[in-house]
Amino acid sequence: MSIISKIKSIFKSSSAPAKKASTPTKAAAPAKKTTPAAKPVEKKTPAPAAAVNPKEVETLLAAIKERRTIYSLKPELPEGVTLSDIKDITQAILKDTPSAFNSQPNKVIILTGEAHKKVWNQVVDAIPTEDGKKRPQSAADEAYGTILFLIDDAVTKSLQEGFPDWAAAFPDFAVTSNGAVQISTWNALSQLPGFGAHLQHYNFLKGFLGDKIGENYTVQAQLVFGTKVAEAGEKTYNDNTIPVVTEL
Amino acid sequence: MSIISKIKSIFKSSSAPAKKASTPTKAAAPAKKTTPAAKPVEKKTPAPAAAVNPKEVETLLAAIKERRTIYSLKPELPEGVTLSDIKDITQAILKDTPSAFNSQPNKVIILTGEAHKKVWNQVVDAIPTEDGKKRPQSAADEAYGTILFLIDDAVTKSLQEGFPDWAAAFPDFAVTSNGAVQISTWNALSQLPGFGAHLQHYNFLKGFLGDKIGENYTVQAQLVFGTKVAEAGEKTYNDNTIPVVTEL
Repeated sequence: MSIISKIKSIFKSSSAPAKKASTPTKAAAPAKKTTPAAKPVEKKTPAPAAAVNPKEVETLLAAIKERRTIYSLKPELPEGVTLSDIKDITQAILKDTPSAFNSQPNKVIILTGEAHKKVWNQVVDAIPTEDGKKRPQSAADEAYGTILFLIDDAVTKSLQEGFPDWAAAFPDFAVTSNGAVQISTWNALSQLPGFGAHLQHYNFLKGFLGDKIGENYTVQAQLVFGTKVAEAGEKTYNDNTIPVVTEL
Repeated sequence: MSIISKIKSIFKSSSAPAKKASTPTKAAAPAKKTTPAAKPVEKKTPAPAAAVNPKEVETLLAAIKERRTIYSLKPELPEGVTLSDIKDITQAILKDTPSAFNSQPNKVIILTGEAHKKVWNQVVDAIPTEDGKKRPQSAADEAYGTILFLIDDAVTKSLQEGFPDWAAAFPDFAVTSNGAVQISTWNALSQLPGFGAHLQHYNFLKGFLGDKIGENYTVQAQLVFGTKVAEAGEKTYNDNTIPVVTEL
């Protein structure tokens, strides 16, 4: 079965959700279901708060808040962390990040050692201004490695051919899904004590990767990582209060 | 100070990370730093595993794995969950999701009740084929609400004017950052027992929102949510093994 007909059959079957209602599935059933969600607690605050903020949600929100851009790095792995750990965590995220029609257009390449240094030094050489050279130079000298986030454009093209009505949307779908891999990786790795990273977009570095990168791949972003030397400064926020609209 | 000069000053100061090294900051210091990361444990498996997989990372990876597309919904909130909880969790994520130069182009609007129903019924009416009407009809009838993810294009335009060299990149940066808000929201809410959702891209529904949506906003995606009636089926995976490149 071609990828497109496979996708079309999935798409079709998912249009009839009612049928699935009584089917037992092997899908990961969240363990916290056993928590007595509605158990009333004797206190003044409204009861729902405890029930709807299971510790998993708290951990996720804390991780999102704690992930910061860290420019002060040294070119080492944090104590107790191996490159395999970095790779395994990233691999798990790459595997389970959703994509349009489960098309999985995302790819990841990790650079370290001489490859990391060489690529970033070539970026430095390619940038004309002294000011512009600073950031890639720090990546070359102060970081341990780079996680490259990529999109396989052949997947996007195949979707466009299979679903011409949606053709214009697929490139953005891929970028969105890639953004999901990026943030989840950054969030998760930032929970490793001592880990620090900043996300860059010197996407033309594809040209320096030779045959290490697929011909159809585009580079979307680079998570430049190492051991954190200093915490991030304070962050400023705009007011982005979410409106709840109940009537139109 | 204009937004652009503010950004430029931030950008400049962040080029000199070394200065920050000894400055104490108020940035969220991860509590788990006190964990004795390198404490050797008497067992056969290599020591690093325990140190580099703090439970926070495990929780994040589990949440990413457990988040699935759930089409079988009923139009209720899960027991013990309020709309305020949904809003607060989403708000926290919107607040702390990174964006290019901290430009914060992301917006969120939550639709529920008559507004939710009306918008999705208009989407149904706008789609010519019977098959195409099914998904938006299920959103109208079987979901409790919709979380709309939006980009304020005025922010992108302002960045393009302020940094003409990067002008071509800013639209993708905004889409990437929006993708980060989408996935983090979906991951976190999916940890609420009973919560189910699927992500849609009927972005033309902007036209049905009247003055509830900013003129410069584009709709990126819709997380259609309610109470889960059935788990997702099995997922298939491509081989996306991450290569580690050390030499070029």
